[in-house]
Amino acid sequence: MKIPLFHCLMKIDGKAWRTIWLESDGASVGVIDQTLLPHRFGSLRLATLEDAAHAIRSMQVRGAPLIGATAAYGLWLALRTDASDENLERAYAVLLDTRPTAINLKWALDEMLAAVRNRPRTERAAVALQRATDICDEDVAINQAIGRHGLALIEEIAARKKGGRVNVLTHCNAGWLATVDWGTATAPIYMAHDKGIAVHVFADETRPRNQGAALTAWELGRHGVPHTVIPDNTGGHLMQHGMVDLVIVGTDRVTAQGDVCNKIGTYLKALAARDNGVPFYVALPSPTIDFTVSDGVAEIPIEQRSGDEVATISGKTADGRIETVQVIPDGSAVANYGFDVTPARLVTGLITERGVIAASRPALAQAFPERAEVSPESAAKVRA
Amino acid sequence: MKIPLFHCLMKIDGKAWRTIWLESDGASVGVIDQTLLPHRFGSLRLATLEDAAHAIRSMQVRGAPLIGATAAYGLWLALRTDASDENLERAYAVLLDTRPTAINLKWALDEMLAAVRNRPRTERAAVALQRATDICDEDVAINQAIGRHGLALIEEIAARKKGGRVNVLTHCNAGWLATVDWGTATAPIYMAHDKGIAVHVFADETRPRNQGAALTAWELGRHGVPHTVIPDNTGGHLMQHGMVDLVIVGTDRVTAQGDVCNKIGTYLKALAARDNGVPFYVALPSPTIDFTVSDGVAEIPIEQRSGDEVATISGKTADGRIETVQVIPDGSAVANYGFDVTPARLVTGLITERGVIAASRPALAQAFPERAEVSPESAAKVRA
Repeated sequence: MKIPLFHCLMKIDGKAWRTIWLESDGASVGVIDQTLLPHRFGSLRLATLEDAAHAIRSMQVRGAPLIGATAAYGLWLALRTDASDENLERAYAVLLDTRPTAINLKWALDEMLAAVRNRPRTERAAVALQRATDICDEDVAINQAIGRHGLALIEEIAARKKGGRVNVLTHCNAGWLATVDWGTATAPIYMAHDKGIAVHVFADETRPRNQGAALTAWELGRHGVPHTVIPDNTGGHLMQHGMVDLVIVGTDRVTAQGDVCNKIGTYLKALAARDNGVPFYVALPSPTIDFTVSDGVAEIPIEQRSGDEVATISGKTADGRIETVQVIPDGSAVANYGFDVTPARLVTGLITERGVIAASRPALAQAFPERAEVSPESAAKVRA
Repeated sequence: MKIPLFHCLMKIDGKAWRTIWLESDGASVGVIDQTLLPHRFGSLRLATLEDAAHAIRSMQVRGAPLIGATAAYGLWLALRTDASDENLERAYAVLLDTRPTAINLKWALDEMLAAVRNRPRTERAAVALQRATDICDEDVAINQAIGRHGLALIEEIAARKKGGRVNVLTHCNAGWLATVDWGTATAPIYMAHDKGIAVHVFADETRPRNQGAALTAWELGRHGVPHTVIPDNTGGHLMQHGMVDLVIVGTDRVTAQGDVCNKIGTYLKALAARDNGVPFYVALPSPTIDFTVSDGVAEIPIEQRSGDEVATISGKTADGRIETVQVIPDGSAVANYGFDVTPARLVTGLITERGVIAASRPALAQAFPERAEVSPESAAKVRA
């Protein structure tokens, strides 16, 4: 396995890792298999388009930015064997179909398409590899910028609390594991911790897939950040009792008016934050903004996933085996909506690579004018 | 095992059951062991004070009304062997100490104390048994009255929807299993279903102990009520999309001003209901009202339970074994607050045995004047 050369935040057993990397054979991509966490750590080699699509679909890789990066490499893997327009279109469609919610997926595929479209077939694979590599490096740079802007918010609270512990609540995993490096919601936390600020994280368990307990707690633990896993039901009580200083979550898609689509349950925490005067921030790289959508509740299709994710839970037995257990009665129905939408009115601010901005149409358009100019019509043309 | 003679709602494999009953030996009490559900069904015999205290503490029995009934029988079991004042005081203290939140526990113990206090020692056991039996029968009658009042709310919605399915969301288990029979939140649902109204229940999983998935889904299934288990994160999304017609939850303690203490996470659902104009009702027997407490958020002590309930989950393996698995990384901390408080301002109404009333001090005092007159001072005297 290749140790990435670019500066890496996370060290696992002393070794620096990104979540995705070009393997040393130059013909395949390595990723951390997130379905094994937190009880085992291992990686996967993706050698084909199908490998990449499967990794996204089965959530071996997840998190909006990492899904985008994996899709970009997936398109390269497809072009390596067949650089025809037909195969480009097929690969684009296969990858776009893997997950419906994260807009970064479409953004990354469109970036790849724009890069290779008018190139000779002989050059397409090389161009695609370069663009995929750049997308990964850009994600790292974006997350570092998000981290610096979010750090200022944490420093402000730390100053007000005169060195008292700053308690951040987060939902799901918008961490190092959801991106190429650093994370979005976690970047400010890692930077604060590394600077010596006493920061503590309440990590929502995040049923049904338990990404908060399995992934966020795991990566915070590897980096030595103090944290407490709480059931998803707990955040409101903590906020009522002044035990949360701010909420920072990630997002899979932000609309032109600032509505935030994120892991199911985010909306409930935003309501509790509003009811208790706790600042509620959303950390996002600009590729997560979808300027073609306005009303998130009405317009964003919400992925419904397998009922097995609700009906069963996997974990480690006392003797160290990984076992899956059924937690509902035989014969009961389940529903599994993957995401919900937090209306912009509940969001204190968006932490982007260009600073902390309001969750509003004017603020988003002003901060990202080059992307806001894409009207729904021209977006449809790009898609076509 | 004795089949109780009093009218019973629930039938398990065709046999009518209450959740607690006097065993045919006349010297012990039977209860359903709720820690075995939903994958196994079995009962326990409680023969001593210690058995009863253990059953409450370990949550073999749970739910505010059933805790009260079990404590009442527990006091009787103590007096059977030693009817002295010293033993009465000791048993009262032991039972009161089992769970800190449900006020029914204290209510039932005070009822028992008042019944036996000035009786000759030779009569105390018989009087205690009679009062414990009455407390159980009263609970059944109260829940039937709650059911009738709540049924009217469901009928109103069914009429408005012209026979369309009425979707009720509930949190935790305020069902048959939480009471002696019928349940509080579930009584209107069972009555609507039995009347042929198309009622469907969204049952919150209710982490960390999964009482919604393990208990509510199980008992609804036994009675044939259509239901869907959802992660605790899901209710807000459903309400945003008009998929919930009303919320009905139970409670462990309602304050004099109408604040509602209930299983952790209830507050988050109340916020979502308010934000989406969904009626949010709380079903309660009057013994759950604590007129000595006003501000629920500030005054009610919230039970913190073992971290194991968050760190591990039990369920059924594919080959039918019951297994416990760890769902957090080694070394991560957890927090486990058992309850939260929903402020009265978020409650549409309280469904009591005397009708549906506002969650307010005047409405509560008017509906239950004989209990509201107990000032904090006189309550302290009763306690002493």
